[in-house]
Amino acid sequence: MGSQAPGTEQQADRFADDPAFAVHEGGKLSVVPTRSIDSIADLALTYTPGVARVSSAIAGEPALARRFTWAPRVVAVVSDGTAVLGLGDIGPAASLPVMEGKACLFAEFGGLSAVPVVLSTTDVDTIVETVVAIAPSFGGINLEDISAPRCFEIEARLRERLDIPVMHDDQHGTAIVVLAALRNAAKVVGRELGDLRVVVAGAGAAGVACTKILLEAGIGDIAVADSRGILHAGRDDLTPIKQWLVDSTNKAQLAGTMVAALEGADVYLGLSGGTVPESAIASMAKNCIVFSLANPIPEVDPEMAARYAAVVATGRSDLPNQINNVLAFPGVFRGAIDAAATGITEEMKLAAATAIADVVGDEVRPDYIVPSPLDRRVATAVAEAVAAEWRRTGG
Amino acid sequence: MGSQAPGTEQQADRFADDPAFAVHEGGKLSVVPTRSIDSIADLALTYTPGVARVSSAIAGEPALARRFTWAPRVVAVVSDGTAVLGLGDIGPAASLPVMEGKACLFAEFGGLSAVPVVLSTTDVDTIVETVVAIAPSFGGINLEDISAPRCFEIEARLRERLDIPVMHDDQHGTAIVVLAALRNAAKVVGRELGDLRVVVAGAGAAGVACTKILLEAGIGDIAVADSRGILHAGRDDLTPIKQWLVDSTNKAQLAGTMVAALEGADVYLGLSGGTVPESAIASMAKNCIVFSLANPIPEVDPEMAARYAAVVATGRSDLPNQINNVLAFPGVFRGAIDAAATGITEEMKLAAATAIADVVGDEVRPDYIVPSPLDRRVATAVAEAVAAEWRRTGG
Repeated sequence: MGSQAPGTEQQADRFADDPAFAVHEGGKLSVVPTRSIDSIADLALTYTPGVARVSSAIAGEPALARRFTWAPRVVAVVSDGTAVLGLGDIGPAASLPVMEGKACLFAEFGGLSAVPVVLSTTDVDTIVETVVAIAPSFGGINLEDISAPRCFEIEARLRERLDIPVMHDDQHGTAIVVLAALRNAAKVVGRELGDLRVVVAGAGAAGVACTKILLEAGIGDIAVADSRGILHAGRDDLTPIKQWLVDSTNKAQLAGTMVAALEGADVYLGLSGGTVPESAIASMAKNCIVFSLANPIPEVDPEMAARYAAVVATGRSDLPNQINNVLAFPGVFRGAIDAAATGITEEMKLAAATAIADVVGDEVRPDYIVPSPLDRRVATAVAEAVAAEWRRTGG
Repeated sequence: MGSQAPGTEQQADRFADDPAFAVHEGGKLSVVPTRSIDSIADLALTYTPGVARVSSAIAGEPALARRFTWAPRVVAVVSDGTAVLGLGDIGPAASLPVMEGKACLFAEFGGLSAVPVVLSTTDVDTIVETVVAIAPSFGGINLEDISAPRCFEIEARLRERLDIPVMHDDQHGTAIVVLAALRNAAKVVGRELGDLRVVVAGAGAAGVACTKILLEAGIGDIAVADSRGILHAGRDDLTPIKQWLVDSTNKAQLAGTMVAALEGADVYLGLSGGTVPESAIASMAKNCIVFSLANPIPEVDPEMAARYAAVVATGRSDLPNQINNVLAFPGVFRGAIDAAATGITEEMKLAAATAIADVVGDEVRPDYIVPSPLDRRVATAVAEAVAAEWRRTGG
């Protein structure tokens, strides 16, 4: 049988004008044997009767599974398709190209196998039980594009139930790269992290995780805004996670709009979409930092931002300083797996951020605060830092 | 990062003497991207922002998932590790080498990707709900090494719930190859299937499925035995599936031992292990047929069997006439997937058996009733026959 995927016959092709469709023809992944089966002898080793001796050995000594199966080096990329890129709740089948892309990046940059697992359910309990049930097949669980606030509970419960690394990338991948970028941006403007006042626009998955890691990294003051304005103790519409944000941020107890909070702020971190007016950016402190990560249209026009800010970063691949999760997740999982970590600790995430920032090192400039997403040094550096941190503090 | 799997450092190696372990070092599978990511432009097509256009298109027109994702050509090899080869209930981790081997065979012979999914549960309801939940990730579900009678209910419920091919290979893969072999064995001895009296030793997964397909193929009379002897209406220990066997077989209402039933029988089909005495084989009809499939030790010594039987087949790779499921499952799933079949019908299984038998064709001899497991013509012929049958009778 040929290698052409079946059922993909050329049609009078309405997709011919967009090369993205050609790249996706037949899907973007393949599972391949690492051993060839060219003889009855090969078959008798790879499959019965030889395989029975390997299975018997693992049954008697479970730790041997790490050496003699592929599972410890396979990451499940799990999604229910409820918060896919900027597209929202498009369901499991439509989310698959994104999960396949993620798996490609795990292979390219992390040297790991990854398998998209998209789910026909959006029920939190069912998702948790499903992932627990299939977990022996995998060495790590990358949760992806699951809507807030469900993503927080699903991740927390799976971390509790499983003894392999579990990470919701929309939260922590983003947070790690944002912290790396902010470390280097602070260096560019000659500031300490502890002295910065930050406004985070967005209290979804990325907003919560970024706020958390920035607090852990010692940021002095953070105000977090959702679509109704700054989160503060006087709000009567707080979910548990937003209540946690209120308890942990906003020292000045600002209570107005996000735009008002920007006055005199050092850092704007946009994770929400929408548009920020020029006057708000103009009101920020001197040598301010603007990270505007909505994609493909940043909340703050980058050209406008450059008139006021010392450092500007976006999520766009056609501009400098691209904040891209691919700088984090392949190395984080690879490092955790290399160290046989039973989870991903806060210390490991902080170590990953430092490692990413350090790849830039002394070359840091206003338009070079994070490495290129294609920089192959990054995943290696992150993996080494994450594995070392697990060995130091996690095990 | 190199291609050497991490954590597989050479140890003072107690496994060095068995080449089966060397073959399993680091596992036997890898997930690889089918597109390389060498530039920012590649990244922007494989991942964001290009992938969003593909996901949007699928969200608007779900049938496009067949063309632009890998899922329709991926088979999940699902096991709870409760009935692994002859090893029994060894659990999910220890079953993985078998499932990886199966996935290798799907790739080698069926040109399909396959992903081992081993489960941390043996509860029937949980297994069904788990497979339903992950089903949008796959184009087919191969159930494997799940103990009887749970395997019957799990398969039946999944066939009901899912609109992709579901097949428990220990049942139907075995049954298809047994029927193919019996077709050619009957040809060798110049008999019609309808005239044969068959004794099936074993009423587990394989015994039930073999009996079912042999009845569908028009075998005249079948007596089925479990460890307590022939199944008949007077037994008071019948599970629902054994009651079905009683209702469907044993025209003569034999009530004794399996050995007694062999007197005058034309075919012995051993699927149970144990040992059959020479006197029992000697009591069979002239030009009888012995399929003794316990592995690695057949129920009937093949040399002894050859003194009485016109045709002898086993499950062993070092003897002629090896009854090996690999002759069936890669082509069955490939054909079903090629035809976009929503299930695997009885007619498709019968067509697969005929296709396997026909690869042998006019070359049929007492020691050549089934093709070699390595014969690459088989999966192609089976896939074509299965796809054609779906198009003819299934859709």
